Amino acid sequence: MLQKKPLNIATIGTGFMGRAHSNAWQKVRHFFDLEYQPVLKVICGRNPASTQAFADRWGYESAETDWRKVVDRKDIQAIDICVPNNLHREIALAAAKAGKMVLCEKPLALNTAEGEEMCRAVEATGVANMVWYNYRRIPAVTMARQLIESGRLGRIYHYRANFLQDWTIAEDVPQGGNALWRLDSAAAGSGVTGDLLAHCIDTAIWLNGSIRDVTAMTETFVKERVHTESGRLQPVGIDDACAFLCHFDNGSLGLFESTRYARGHKALYTFEINGQHASIKWDLHDLHRLEYFDHGDESALRGWRSIHVTDHGGSHPYMNHWWVPGLQIGYEHSFVHQVADFLDGLAKNSPAGPTFRDALETQKVCDAVLKSAATGMWTSVQAK
Amino acid sequence: MLQKKPLNIATIGTGFMGRAHSNAWQKVRHFFDLEYQPVLKVICGRNPASTQAFADRWGYESAETDWRKVVDRKDIQAIDICVPNNLHREIALAAAKAGKMVLCEKPLALNTAEGEEMCRAVEATGVANMVWYNYRRIPAVTMARQLIESGRLGRIYHYRANFLQDWTIAEDVPQGGNALWRLDSAAAGSGVTGDLLAHCIDTAIWLNGSIRDVTAMTETFVKERVHTESGRLQPVGIDDACAFLCHFDNGSLGLFESTRYARGHKALYTFEINGQHASIKWDLHDLHRLEYFDHGDESALRGWRSIHVTDHGGSHPYMNHWWVPGLQIGYEHSFVHQVADFLDGLAKNSPAGPTFRDALETQKVCDAVLKSAATGMWTSVQAK
Amino acid sequence: MLQKKPLNIATIGTGFMGRAHSNAWQKVRHFFDLEYQPVLKVICGRNPASTQAFADRWGYESAETDWRKVVDRKDIQAIDICVPNNLHREIALAAAKAGKMVLCEKPLALNTAEGEEMCRAVEATGVANMVWYNYRRIPAVTMARQLIESGRLGRIYHYRANFLQDWTIAEDVPQGGNALWRLDSAAAGSGVTGDLLAHCIDTAIWLNGSIRDVTAMTETFVKERVHTESGRLQPVGIDDACAFLCHFDNGSLGLFESTRYARGHKALYTFEINGQHASIKWDLHDLHRLEYFDHGDESALRGWRSIHVTDHGGSHPYMNHWWVPGLQIGYEHSFVHQVADFLDGLAKNSPAGPTFRDALETQKVCDAVLKSAATGMWTSVQAK
Amino acid sequence: MLQKKPLNIATIGTGFMGRAHSNAWQKVRHFFDLEYQPVLKVICGRNPASTQAFADRWGYESAETDWRKVVDRKDIQAIDICVPNNLHREIALAAAKAGKMVLCEKPLALNTAEGEEMCRAVEATGVANMVWYNYRRIPAVTMARQLIESGRLGRIYHYRANFLQDWTIAEDVPQGGNALWRLDSAAAGSGVTGDLLAHCIDTAIWLNGSIRDVTAMTETFVKERVHTESGRLQPVGIDDACAFLCHFDNGSLGLFESTRYARGHKALYTFEINGQHASIKWDLHDLHRLEYFDHGDESALRGWRSIHVTDHGGSHPYMNHWWVPGLQIGYEHSFVHQVADFLDGLAKNSPAGPTFRDALETQKVCDAVLKSAATGMWTSVQAK
Repeated sequence: MLQKKPLNIATIGTGFMGRAHSNAWQKVRHFFDLEYQPVLKVICGRNPASTQAFADRWGYESAETDWRKVVDRKDIQAIDICVPNNLHREIALAAAKAGKMVLCEKPLALNTAEGEEMCRAVEATGVANMVWYNYRRIPAVTMARQLIESGRLGRIYHYRANFLQDWTIAEDVPQGGNALWRLDSAAAGSGVTGDLLAHCIDTAIWLNGSIRDVTAMTETFVKERVHTESGRLQPVGIDDACAFLCHFDNGSLGLFESTRYARGHKALYTFEINGQHASIKWDLHDLHRLEYFDHGDESALRGWRSIHVTDHGGSHPYMNHWWVPGLQIGYEHSFVHQVADFLDGLAKNSPAGPTFRDALETQKVCDAVLKSAATGMWTSVQAK
Repeated sequence: MLQKKPLNIATIGTGFMGRAHSNAWQKVRHFFDLEYQPVLKVICGRNPASTQAFADRWGYESAETDWRKVVDRKDIQAIDICVPNNLHREIALAAAKAGKMVLCEKPLALNTAEGEEMCRAVEATGVANMVWYNYRRIPAVTMARQLIESGRLGRIYHYRANFLQDWTIAEDVPQGGNALWRLDSAAAGSGVTGDLLAHCIDTAIWLNGSIRDVTAMTETFVKERVHTESGRLQPVGIDDACAFLCHFDNGSLGLFESTRYARGHKALYTFEINGQHASIKWDLHDLHRLEYFDHGDESALRGWRSIHVTDHGGSHPYMNHWWVPGLQIGYEHSFVHQVADFLDGLAKNSPAGPTFRDALETQKVCDAVLKSAATGMWTSVQAK
Repeated sequence: MLQKKPLNIATIGTGFMGRAHSNAWQKVRHFFDLEYQPVLKVICGRNPASTQAFADRWGYESAETDWRKVVDRKDIQAIDICVPNNLHREIALAAAKAGKMVLCEKPLALNTAEGEEMCRAVEATGVANMVWYNYRRIPAVTMARQLIESGRLGRIYHYRANFLQDWTIAEDVPQGGNALWRLDSAAAGSGVTGDLLAHCIDTAIWLNGSIRDVTAMTETFVKERVHTESGRLQPVGIDDACAFLCHFDNGSLGLFESTRYARGHKALYTFEINGQHASIKWDLHDLHRLEYFDHGDESALRGWRSIHVTDHGGSHPYMNHWWVPGLQIGYEHSFVHQVADFLDGLAKNSPAGPTFRDALETQKVCDAVLKSAATGMWTSVQAK
Repeated sequence: MLQKKPLNIATIGTGFMGRAHSNAWQKVRHFFDLEYQPVLKVICGRNPASTQAFADRWGYESAETDWRKVVDRKDIQAIDICVPNNLHREIALAAAKAGKMVLCEKPLALNTAEGEEMCRAVEATGVANMVWYNYRRIPAVTMARQLIESGRLGRIYHYRANFLQDWTIAEDVPQGGNALWRLDSAAAGSGVTGDLLAHCIDTAIWLNGSIRDVTAMTETFVKERVHTESGRLQPVGIDDACAFLCHFDNGSLGLFESTRYARGHKALYTFEINGQHASIKWDLHDLHRLEYFDHGDESALRGWRSIHVTDHGGSHPYMNHWWVPGLQIGYEHSFVHQVADFLDGLAKNSPAGPTFRDALETQKVCDAVLKSAATGMWTSVQAK
């Protein structure tokens, strides 16, 4: 039996991601055999009462409102950052300086410059670091990577991805504040580009390699929204929609699109990859399925296979930790898998990705996309 | 090049099936290379004006209102019967006696006794004969048969089929008359059993062999409907819904169901067959697709394949006669294929099925189903 | 803020269901605001070492190997039974006698007689009791019930359900022992009838009311299997497949089927309900979706709606406790919901179903089904 | 009853489109009541024997090998052009000059300049003219237009379309000759842009209005192929894949993509349109279905509707001419509808689109796309 080692965690942020991460930290030990066992030491939020309630609910030993105090605590080994994008840099730098492991919500930073600084910080002190691009760990997505790596698809010709939502169509949705900081360019940096396309780009690079250059367009359909803090109509600074074409280093062509104005879609993250020998498709709305077409099948029997990625016994990634074949898992499990891989990487001294450095590449593509949209020119992605 | 031989056709009936058959007779020569070329000599209907209009529209050389005169014509080689079920027997017997080939709409007859008499008649004179169970000739269905015959499914465990419609839910739909004879037990013999389940049974026997015994239930949800001729409410004599369980001779279990009260389904004929090594599914609403699961696929990559049965070049049945891969055909094409096979069978002296004798077996199953529903007992199907 | 009350739980059984229940007991407090807070006091299993490991993994305070000692503990308030079917009765009777609440895995018992005794026991002492027919609490299924109760479907004509698996096709799968007691008639009582059809029947009664009578067939495809304890080939006593037709009290017709020989299906529990005004469909392989057809829609725009039952904010059952629209939950969440409802029922003194008495009705249908299959006769379901 | 008028047709071309058009000319009178009745006077092809065989098969009165003689025939009223793109202009100009109606396969021409000349020619003589963008007349597509025109979608935000094939992945597919002229830039003008994207663009303009500007990329994956005439490897001049982003005049954003390297897709033409109130989706592989999401539905019951566009009785476009609800039609029917509308337009003196002038707009977008791909710049579409 494994000798268990505690790993003391501090989580900064009590919003949507604070819940998703806390659930993962709590749940991982029930389903995975790991050397490191997370201990939920402290949760940090702005409001004392609601932060204490969060601590009670999720089993944190203590609650705190000042993230600097958390970073200074000697007993904390890892800082998990789940706050708006404009706060990532400062907390990450402080945590790295204090010698803590750092796990940071995506996107890594507001821009490439910030991201570079953060990478240098964690690399200077050599602390473990990771960015929560959780969709890599959905079993069907992990399996897509395995299929590509095995050579089954052969040369890749096309990669297309989109992330479609519809929650900001109404003009009376305000911007800013705790709940709606994603619509506030000061807090979020960008709109759908950093929030949604960043996921698509991270997966794409992981599956298909680096992106060379892009041509993009963005649009802001609703030009002014009430700001929740000022109570006044203010110009909207974020992109409501963004699309781009690109070339990958491997010669394949890419199409990416994201919007919050696609009526009928709530969180429709999809990708499709067309290779010489086979193709794959996936979408987040039915995340436990992978669509697969294999040209090697006998001619009359070729068809898109709808693979229910729920097999235990080792044939489907991660699924031997859960239930029995046919019983699906959901969104939250991707975070559990990420925690499991992070802890396993610590034990094996083999860091689980995406590291800050990995995530910086996504940041560079986002920056190139926004620049191309602003200039109307094809734009090269900054070299690694 | 083939020496073309004309085949003189008389069609009896100008309703829905009269149109479907006429279209097939007209169209087959454009898409199939056949020795026999159908010549549309005469159409027969009750109303002189509308029958003449039908002749003009569909290119029949003449119109007639007395089917006996048609049967007596020396120049006619084949009689195609597209009239209500209660008229099948008399016309078929006369046609056979006159030495004509007989093609008869399904179900063959009102009951087994009539069907036996009709079989004896055509067999006595040796005329070519066929029943229009057209769904056998939908490419995906034909392909299902090929897969089973090839042994790919292995031992069969389960066969389930249903045919679901919803057009008689409203209580004010009348019964009887030209358009609604299917709701009139005098004209139709039975309700969904002969109209819809007969299709399911024909396909099942063709794909999976004979049915040994059945337990059934029927229901008539609306007990009285206005008769279009009397204008009065009269008891409804037909079954609105019918379901049965059965054993096939090969040891597999069957489930069949049909109804006109399945809200949301128009003509949803589906079947699924589960074998030891593979399974297949099909439905009429997307008739150009066959779903196929092959346990022989590599474990992690097993999934139901959605096969778009539109490949030309020989790999998909009939499709090399039509367009290019990806371009679907529709309902009417099943009749064209049946005509093509009938004509090809003539040329090769190898009769295309289902013959009257083949269709009689379906009639026997229908009779056993209705008897079981009436008695509440498991009922054996009469031996061939 | 709610005053929290601890509820001390003892779980009997460390198998698949022991895990599923433990996860629910652990997780419910993170996502639901409840007066009662489960405390995992003791886990009971046969093997001391693995039971202790289970306790460590799942956070039980202690481990035990003798269920009678657990039942005797004064500090235990609720006994959760997750053992093979043939042990349900004895434990439940002892627990009820000891004044403990009893939660029992499904099916309630080996047969109606046992079930009656168990009902009398819990009702005599008035302890809270529940049976884990967890599928009622999948949001899409709960929503189906709401739609029916609201009258949207109108009169119901048809109910059809099946539960299809394929894991026992290979003849070398043994029977018996800890892992395979479901194939051993001594431990399981029946095969697919109690294991799978019982789920279908529970849901059906909940959604569509009582079943009046049935005609059924069962089949055992593999007649002998090696028993894991004796190591010898022994006759297989369970039903591999079971199907039945039935009448519901409300006049609708039912079709049910279950098998472990449906190649390509792992846990395909599906149901479809056809009503006068609307129809609904659901399947466990994509459990977060409900298919809905509404005849009240404008004629040209009628179609089956694929509803992604993930909306928060109150419009979809249970979903306001989880993530954001578009992000799906999985199988395990149905157990969390059941725990939440059980605890909420305690607080409100309004017992959550299905109670033992509710589950007894399912037992009676199972018994009627097995009797009909044995006798070949339509069989009435024993009155409530 | 209508007084029938013959319309004498000459078809130029015996390839894939020659068959599709001939079928439509033959079949339209069986299913539509029209004043004008097409008479198939002459078919024109390069090879005398095969052209005569084509005439025999399709019922043309005569066969011809010189298209100029056909154009000169006094008895011909309409010329139907089904030849490679580089021959459209010359034949159309001659036909217009001879005062014939002209129906031309798509794309209209090799480029905008040719297209302008052709428009001027038909407009100068005032002859009826049409281009075979047949997909407009698939009932589900026509219905999409009706929904948009009715205002149901409200303001449009997004339009995305693609046309994916996979038939040229193998490097040993040759270019040129009768069968493969689509791969030969001399005959085709461009690759997927003119062949496939032109369809997407025509539909888009019809449904969503004019396109203002584009940024595009093209790729030729296989750089050299054997030419069927020279037998030698020659550079490939066509685009194998093309994608572009665009702005529509109405402020919506467009994404278009086409390729012949999307493994697993044969003719997957799809579009999706997201509006303020509703969205629609369609794909050619299941062309009889329209997916529709209506935000006006009650919140809990919102879902994408899969509308089976097969209703007769007037609620679905064109379908009252065919079979009964639930019975699907196929690819070829779009041509029949186009012929019916053309003939109806003649009778009503209200020309059916797309006219040459309509199709010229698509040509201008194609030219802008190719120019943008060549220059790497956003490119404005030439004004109407």
